[in-house]
Amino acid sequence: MDYNAAALKMHSEHRGKIEIRGKVGVKTRDDLSTAYTPGVAEPCRRIAADPAAAYEYTSKGSMVAVVTDGSAVLGLGDIGPLAALPVMEGKALLFKEFGGVDAVPICLDVHTPEEIIAAVKAIAPAYGGINLEDIAAPKCFEIESALESALDIPVFHDDQHGTAIVVASALKNALKVAGKSLEDARIVLNGPGAAGTAITNMLLSLGAGDVTVCDRRGALYPGREGLTAHKAALAEKTNPRRVSGPLAAALRGADVFIGVSSGNVVTGDMVRSMAELPIVFAMANPTPEIPYDEALAAGAYVIGTGRSDYPNQINNVLAFPGVFRGSLSVRARDINTAMKAAAVDALAGLIAADELSPMRIIPDAFDGRVADAVAAAVAAAARESGAARP
Amino acid sequence: MDYNAAALKMHSEHRGKIEIRGKVGVKTRDDLSTAYTPGVAEPCRRIAADPAAAYEYTSKGSMVAVVTDGSAVLGLGDIGPLAALPVMEGKALLFKEFGGVDAVPICLDVHTPEEIIAAVKAIAPAYGGINLEDIAAPKCFEIESALESALDIPVFHDDQHGTAIVVASALKNALKVAGKSLEDARIVLNGPGAAGTAITNMLLSLGAGDVTVCDRRGALYPGREGLTAHKAALAEKTNPRRVSGPLAAALRGADVFIGVSSGNVVTGDMVRSMAELPIVFAMANPTPEIPYDEALAAGAYVIGTGRSDYPNQINNVLAFPGVFRGSLSVRARDINTAMKAAAVDALAGLIAADELSPMRIIPDAFDGRVADAVAAAVAAAARESGAARP
Repeated sequence: MDYNAAALKMHSEHRGKIEIRGKVGVKTRDDLSTAYTPGVAEPCRRIAADPAAAYEYTSKGSMVAVVTDGSAVLGLGDIGPLAALPVMEGKALLFKEFGGVDAVPICLDVHTPEEIIAAVKAIAPAYGGINLEDIAAPKCFEIESALESALDIPVFHDDQHGTAIVVASALKNALKVAGKSLEDARIVLNGPGAAGTAITNMLLSLGAGDVTVCDRRGALYPGREGLTAHKAALAEKTNPRRVSGPLAAALRGADVFIGVSSGNVVTGDMVRSMAELPIVFAMANPTPEIPYDEALAAGAYVIGTGRSDYPNQINNVLAFPGVFRGSLSVRARDINTAMKAAAVDALAGLIAADELSPMRIIPDAFDGRVADAVAAAVAAAARESGAARP
Repeated sequence: MDYNAAALKMHSEHRGKIEIRGKVGVKTRDDLSTAYTPGVAEPCRRIAADPAAAYEYTSKGSMVAVVTDGSAVLGLGDIGPLAALPVMEGKALLFKEFGGVDAVPICLDVHTPEEIIAAVKAIAPAYGGINLEDIAAPKCFEIESALESALDIPVFHDDQHGTAIVVASALKNALKVAGKSLEDARIVLNGPGAAGTAITNMLLSLGAGDVTVCDRRGALYPGREGLTAHKAALAEKTNPRRVSGPLAAALRGADVFIGVSSGNVVTGDMVRSMAELPIVFAMANPTPEIPYDEALAAGAYVIGTGRSDYPNQINNVLAFPGVFRGSLSVRARDINTAMKAAAVDALAGLIAADELSPMRIIPDAFDGRVADAVAAAVAAAARESGAARP
């Protein structure tokens, strides 16, 4: 199928993918006086007296802002906020179709962290959560962190945490299939951008004992010349064996490769140099770090990609709809580590022990159980961890 | 009917009044690859190459931001952005139900003109138009003017221009009924806020020859002590006979009273002091400047109010849905004076000459012809005046 042609047709036929719909009709004078003036003044008064009443009388509790500045859109790079709109509408569509969450694209024509933070704080009141999307690293880290502190609603950079949840979940099952443990496995991650950083932090928080992060120049280790502050911080908490040298060197003897980098940076020989029963997540899109067939031929035992035409698609749609629905359902103040870990477990748990295989470590995107299971686990964790509103 | 109770019930039953809906389904892997990655990249590329393509491939051309900072909400005053949300959702609901326009509430938690301007500029790319709503005067004037200059999409403060369009249209027909002309009629307007200022400017642009504007201290005239810059500017272009003194003095011999002020500031005696066949638009809500029955008893010939329980309801819903639909249909760059004047004529023209009467000068809010007629007239005027995109 030619997705480019199909996409142009779909997008122009409907002039975009989302619309606003009323949840109530306005057919009579009484409808008008109830939905609008004079009746609407009463919910306004209630909310003015008690802001929490907004969850009762407005759509705030089901509305999420999908915010981008268009600086890191898909593999297209910095194409700006307007050109990013089809992706943001697509995200909003998936939020609704997969999670029943109402999501509004907010495409920001400002680009410094300070301006983005100010704009998101400005628009925050109407939303129950903020989903940051396709904002370039490293500014995405500063923006997320500042907004988390400033706002009393969840702020979730999906490119980071959605990806980390799905990868951690897939890895958990892959290690089980291979008979290895997260604590002992040697894990090599290539690409310390938004996703790579969040995956690293997530795996460390789940107990991973040996993660080495590589960039284009090879393994990050403390003291490596010319490291940015961001990479220096990653180097400090990873690479316990102080591996140095290029990706190929880091991969020698590794149990797991996680690629969130770019196409064709891993060779069959590099896979052959890994430990027994190697796990290869080659998630660069549309061209993976190593083609699926090559990885398989080189002996990769479990393979995951970002693509839908191979087994084990690592797809964010497995996480964000349920994560937000669960958070919104308890009017959460944030999405904390416990909630993310609960999403990992819920997602991994959907593949029963007797179904687990190298070809099946993660549910399919259209598995109807996913959003419900993730939402329930996230809501429970929010309640236990105190992130839920009473 | 108890609208307060009905409104609380409606608002809590549905948790607000609007939702996001997909215009396309996502049931298969191909759907997902067309609406989202990898297919969505192609519309993105087209828009990156030519921003105008956003009208073709996204919802921009039907999406309007309904922007408030909650500083002047209904008669409730400065209740803030969150408490304003029920009104903004109501507005979005009316946009869709009456005009087929998709409108998104943007409730801004910033309050200086500079911050509001910056926030609206930041979020503008995804929208085909900006509807400013319930922003206090005088900052609303500065905000609208700055945004009109900065943005290449229409910026329309409905409290100003929507009201002005409907009032001008009603007045046009009322004067016809009374056998008077806009050029010669003595018009007294009370309340030089957002609506009052826009009505004044609109009437002047349509050829009104004798408009006097009053505030709480009486008629505005050049040189009156303590005038703000805003009122001084109004005084300069109105009050040709240099009337001074309180509202009662200005009303003596007047043909038209237009009230956008507060309840019970006009007495029966004041109406009796007006010229023959006086026209009284007492639009303060919920309590008009003079009760309908009192105005009638005092000899008012044509009476309009803001209320739905009397004839001739001056209701903004007669204007904004059609004005925006017409503007969006031609991808207008702004909503100029010619487009507003066209809306006035279209609305007034819906009451045929043989239907016109003191009890019927303006269509009913549920008259199904209104939005179509206004949209068509606005679109035609946009094309003629050069506001439409080619």
